[in-house]
Amino acid sequence: MSKKDKLKNGNAKDNKGISVNKDDFSEWYSQIVQKAELGDLRYNVKGFLVFQPWSVLCMEKMYRYFEKALQSNGHNPYFFPTLIPEENFNKEAGHVKGFSPEVFWVTHGGDTKLTERLAMRPSSETAFYQMFNLWVRSYKDLPFKTYQRANVFRYETKATRPFLRSREFHWIETHCCFATFEDAMKQVEEDMEVTKDILHDIFGLPFLFFERPGWDKFPGAERTFAADVLNPDGRVVQQPSTHVIKQDFVKAFDIKYVDKDGKEKYVWTTCYGPAMSRIFASVVIVHGDDKGLRFPWEIAPRHVVIVPIGDDKSLIKKAEELKKVIGEIGEVIIDDSDKSNGEKFNEWEMKGIPVRIDLGKRDMKDHKLTVFRRDLNKKEVINEKDLIKYLEKVKKESLKNLMRQADSLFNDRIKNVKNINEMKKAILDGNIVRCGFCSIDANGEKCATIVEKDVGAKVRGSNLVKEKASGKCVICNKKSKNVVYIARDY
Amino acid sequence: MSKKDKLKNGNAKDNKGISVNKDDFSEWYSQIVQKAELGDLRYNVKGFLVFQPWSVLCMEKMYRYFEKALQSNGHNPYFFPTLIPEENFNKEAGHVKGFSPEVFWVTHGGDTKLTERLAMRPSSETAFYQMFNLWVRSYKDLPFKTYQRANVFRYETKATRPFLRSREFHWIETHCCFATFEDAMKQVEEDMEVTKDILHDIFGLPFLFFERPGWDKFPGAERTFAADVLNPDGRVVQQPSTHVIKQDFVKAFDIKYVDKDGKEKYVWTTCYGPAMSRIFASVVIVHGDDKGLRFPWEIAPRHVVIVPIGDDKSLIKKAEELKKVIGEIGEVIIDDSDKSNGEKFNEWEMKGIPVRIDLGKRDMKDHKLTVFRRDLNKKEVINEKDLIKYLEKVKKESLKNLMRQADSLFNDRIKNVKNINEMKKAILDGNIVRCGFCSIDANGEKCATIVEKDVGAKVRGSNLVKEKASGKCVICNKKSKNVVYIARDY
Repeated sequence: MSKKDKLKNGNAKDNKGISVNKDDFSEWYSQIVQKAELGDLRYNVKGFLVFQPWSVLCMEKMYRYFEKALQSNGHNPYFFPTLIPEENFNKEAGHVKGFSPEVFWVTHGGDTKLTERLAMRPSSETAFYQMFNLWVRSYKDLPFKTYQRANVFRYETKATRPFLRSREFHWIETHCCFATFEDAMKQVEEDMEVTKDILHDIFGLPFLFFERPGWDKFPGAERTFAADVLNPDGRVVQQPSTHVIKQDFVKAFDIKYVDKDGKEKYVWTTCYGPAMSRIFASVVIVHGDDKGLRFPWEIAPRHVVIVPIGDDKSLIKKAEELKKVIGEIGEVIIDDSDKSNGEKFNEWEMKGIPVRIDLGKRDMKDHKLTVFRRDLNKKEVINEKDLIKYLEKVKKESLKNLMRQADSLFNDRIKNVKNINEMKKAILDGNIVRCGFCSIDANGEKCATIVEKDVGAKVRGSNLVKEKASGKCVICNKKSKNVVYIARDY
Repeated sequence: MSKKDKLKNGNAKDNKGISVNKDDFSEWYSQIVQKAELGDLRYNVKGFLVFQPWSVLCMEKMYRYFEKALQSNGHNPYFFPTLIPEENFNKEAGHVKGFSPEVFWVTHGGDTKLTERLAMRPSSETAFYQMFNLWVRSYKDLPFKTYQRANVFRYETKATRPFLRSREFHWIETHCCFATFEDAMKQVEEDMEVTKDILHDIFGLPFLFFERPGWDKFPGAERTFAADVLNPDGRVVQQPSTHVIKQDFVKAFDIKYVDKDGKEKYVWTTCYGPAMSRIFASVVIVHGDDKGLRFPWEIAPRHVVIVPIGDDKSLIKKAEELKKVIGEIGEVIIDDSDKSNGEKFNEWEMKGIPVRIDLGKRDMKDHKLTVFRRDLNKKEVINEKDLIKYLEKVKKESLKNLMRQADSLFNDRIKNVKNINEMKKAILDGNIVRCGFCSIDANGEKCATIVEKDVGAKVRGSNLVKEKASGKCVICNKKSKNVVYIARDY
């Protein structure tokens, strides 16, 4: 491949910014992934992606928020093997049925054929559970709460999309054992709380947490709860989900404890799985605007870029000085590349760095700084001595500003509907609809199929705290047992 | 498996501590891995290990030191796919020859046979290099410095040993491109500096950094440098290594840049690979004593344990108060389990927590605290108001104390020898020997083979800064070209 070919090839640094508005969402997303150098799709295994620094730096910050919250809630960290023997995998029927079409299988070590195929984990229940069998003995060991930071593998048959759905993704998975179903449900509530505390209150992402209908649960789950985030094209993306697992599963792995009464009992288990790569996608999608990315300060890959206007050496020296000062409060890049100022401004706005300092000689002489903040797209001149105060203000406000916009957009797009025609129109307009529904247990599946066929949308589920259902099912006209939310997905 | 069986099964919490002294090193190591719950070997894939919280918490801290240092040296973080197509892998002959006996191969996705086998990365040169081909164009892009935190897979044929050599391990790998060989060598020096700054100055591990002989290089390397740490049994463990890669490699992947003179040139590349799981093993081995683990404060999984002496509720309340106060400076565990005090003391000494507070009612009344510091195995009574001052002191001193002991032991075990008999004796006594040697290029391999056969030890290499060689080769009596170091390994 010649160098000339390379220039045409996707991730080219053409410095031209995004050529479409965010309304043209699908194209906007493709462009931002490439042009902001978030991920490179040219890796030569289908459905796999190279995560570039701008996404990794953000995801590492996300990981820390989750790990800190999980540890302070009593989860202990583990690293489990990536490979799971087929034997473990086959122990639980629902799980194997759900996952086996998606498993990558390892069959050889060097030239040696392995005696048993090994699965690259699509999720790690069957690895953790065999160890729970050895670790959990007494009610005193409960709750037994674990997590691991890991990458998982799924031979997806659906179309892949960078960060949203890839064949390898980066997540945290928790696996926990409890004495009772009630304790397990409390864990689900804690997981939902953690999701709110982090996804919404730190990352600024609005979502609704639903109990999934009976026909749409995690393979092997008794109850499944999942957060749905809304994309600008009116489709929802499933974010962290938390599950109470069916006891079939712990029976298959014989995970028992001796209770206070001296009797052996099976534990109840839960799992929770925030996928950092997919949450990153939602941050990109929800907070982005026509110019490109925007980040809350809390998870911005870097906080401040200093662009020296001109190549006078005193400017570089000044930039280095400022970098040291700012170092107390944020991470700084100095862009002294040989691009034009305009190109630099466009690039950093596209990359969503919260603050840019345009460092010119005249400003320097006057002890002034020209600053641009991305959350408000606002340029102003401040006194140099007020820089830290200014940055503290942006640090304090950027999340609030992005969150306010995101919340308002989201809330405007939840529509109550009374019949299938209203539903069709609301879904076409890109909304999540809310309506009465006969039932979210197995009995409702028939009506859900009609929604899928006639409206092209899915029943996402109902609130954990049951909403009062009045009136009739929007499809079959039987009495509503549930209030459900319906939306398109991918 | 019945509950009774579980008790016999390896990781049992028998609270009895280590039953042998550290002199009985092999048994000591096996016991500490199990009894301090560092790793569980009962996972049912051979050569794979479950990393338990006490090791993961420490390794996470290690990762941060490395990532911070690499980023501040201009390396950008990536996440590459775990899977590498066989095609990439086969591009460079030396590399494929070195690694292919050790590759785990993925052949199926679900029931579908893949059109090409995919390697689980044993190392990621062949993944990164194909992207360097796309990313590097001009001298302005150089140096191009990358790293990833990743787990890698090797179907080891040698005996595996927890943390030291497993079939899956956790590391950082850097991959960097440079305009010239000289720039690449400067990177090697930087890598060696980073190794010293972290492994020795933060983790307290003494080591020697050697250039490996011509016959013992990384598959595909032009020059290989590696740090050797010494175990109590007189065997060395290879810790981070850094390599200048042969240009065959970049030619195979066609990684060129346009230089200032307008000409296309091939880059030079380096890689550096600190393996967190193996460094953790060295921390365990080097700093451990007869009672069990010891950690420098900097990487201790947790810093302080509070053991309430008695089950009075006021003690638990007090413990919680102290936990909050200590929270500013360290991470605290309260052990209110129903084990005996003696069991708790043994367990936490074995687990190497830097400070234990034995919280009794009388002390509490007198505003005193009974504290135990593990670096000196010293118990004392302090005024409660001096607690933070005391912890700051331990924080400041624990690394120094452990490092001093480790350095002194290490330095005492480097012995100059003049002939093969002296060498045999020194090696038998568990030393690293230093001697004149005909040559560390291909010409010396014959003598190295004799060392291996007759002494059971390996030529580890010579210093990067060449030491003046006088006299004759310890084996063939030809004039020495190099001063080499020889030791046993595993």
